[in-house]
Amino acid sequence: MQLIGDERLDYLLAEDLTIIQSPTVFAFSLDAVLLARFVQVPIQKGSLVDLCSGNGVIPLLLSTRTKGKIVGVEIQERLYDMAVRSIAHNQLDQQLSMVHEDLKVVTPALGYAKYDVVTCNPPYFLTPSSEEKNLNEHFAIARHEIMCTLEDTIKVSSELLKQGGKAAFVHRPGRLLDIITLMRKYRLEPKRIRFVYPKMGKEANTVLIEGTKDGKVDVKILPPLYVYDDKGEYTKEIKEILYGDSE
Amino acid sequence: MQLIGDERLDYLLAEDLTIIQSPTVFAFSLDAVLLARFVQVPIQKGSLVDLCSGNGVIPLLLSTRTKGKIVGVEIQERLYDMAVRSIAHNQLDQQLSMVHEDLKVVTPALGYAKYDVVTCNPPYFLTPSSEEKNLNEHFAIARHEIMCTLEDTIKVSSELLKQGGKAAFVHRPGRLLDIITLMRKYRLEPKRIRFVYPKMGKEANTVLIEGTKDGKVDVKILPPLYVYDDKGEYTKEIKEILYGDSE
Repeated sequence: MQLIGDERLDYLLAEDLTIIQSPTVFAFSLDAVLLARFVQVPIQKGSLVDLCSGNGVIPLLLSTRTKGKIVGVEIQERLYDMAVRSIAHNQLDQQLSMVHEDLKVVTPALGYAKYDVVTCNPPYFLTPSSEEKNLNEHFAIARHEIMCTLEDTIKVSSELLKQGGKAAFVHRPGRLLDIITLMRKYRLEPKRIRFVYPKMGKEANTVLIEGTKDGKVDVKILPPLYVYDDKGEYTKEIKEILYGDSE
Repeated sequence: MQLIGDERLDYLLAEDLTIIQSPTVFAFSLDAVLLARFVQVPIQKGSLVDLCSGNGVIPLLLSTRTKGKIVGVEIQERLYDMAVRSIAHNQLDQQLSMVHEDLKVVTPALGYAKYDVVTCNPPYFLTPSSEEKNLNEHFAIARHEIMCTLEDTIKVSSELLKQGGKAAFVHRPGRLLDIITLMRKYRLEPKRIRFVYPKMGKEANTVLIEGTKDGKVDVKILPPLYVYDDKGEYTKEIKEILYGDSE
């Protein structure tokens, strides 16, 4: 396996996996790790898709929780290529694959209503203002709704899912109502919501939400997840997610 | 002031107020107290309405937070009457008043778009099944959507509110998505949401939500509120709400 330019090989510590990252192109966030832990997956088999897959962190992490086949979709060639090499390096080619495509047009190739699970850690921000135009293009596409909107990701998730299949997203709480409204518009009934708080006493800064295609109305608000304790260190739960039970 | 039958005079401890309650008719819940603390109110003046007011606990509690005039609307004559007597007993007749009316038709009498704040602790449950038909009528009306639906309360709240006015509700999280959908339908954009958890590690069992009439899209998820600590006692925050700072 070849590292290109400033790429480095990082460990996904809790999972005994490695992943190619690059500080100038893309590094996965805590949010992606939390989403990969949050979503409910079939254990023994199944078909899963990860949209806006970036360097493939979510498919890599999900491979430790399911024996199902996982397809990652990524529009940026550089990130797609990093994901492909990471999959090969972890010898997961039998279970994981990547598609270099615009998610808005990917459904015919992947197949309608064929999947049990779709995950997506989409760009969080609306199209950038002119001041941001000159920012690093890779970051801009990963962070801003340049290549796809929230509605695109939710619509395509619904197209891909079987009835009863689950779509899980991570986003900023400020977009929660839009997410809920769009999920319902595309027949993804929200069933599980978990808010992530930077620490006790603060407002939530991240929301994890899972819906079921054509599910019945009944949402659960899971216990809060705190990232830092009052000493500014990761909480026990976050440490376990990042570093595994051994720490 | 006269107490009727099994009525008793209870203290609203944190507020130095008294309230008439009856175990066989109606006793206010923690949820009503939490809503009265949660909602943002103008301090020096303003016009407020409390729908589904019961024995008037929310107007009584709000009277300690605002100098604005507060109207309670209650359809059950027995509860309306208890509220009227509690207001008189606390010598709050200048600030608080009660209307004995069906909220579905109350807007013309109270006035369209005249209010700064509307609160409502509505019935939580859908119309009862036949097995429940013979339950205490007062409880059934307070708990089930017999006399009004969630949509009625949200629609009327919107009618009553000025542009920029605030509507605050308390409900079960299972209805959260319906509340959000209906609030948006009636131009009440959700802005502040707080989930109440019975204790750490459990799912939320109550949601407090406040929206602004014609407000812009931007919701905040406030820190979680825990009711009991791990010893099964009220948390510090709940004690302060119920009993005041002195405890």
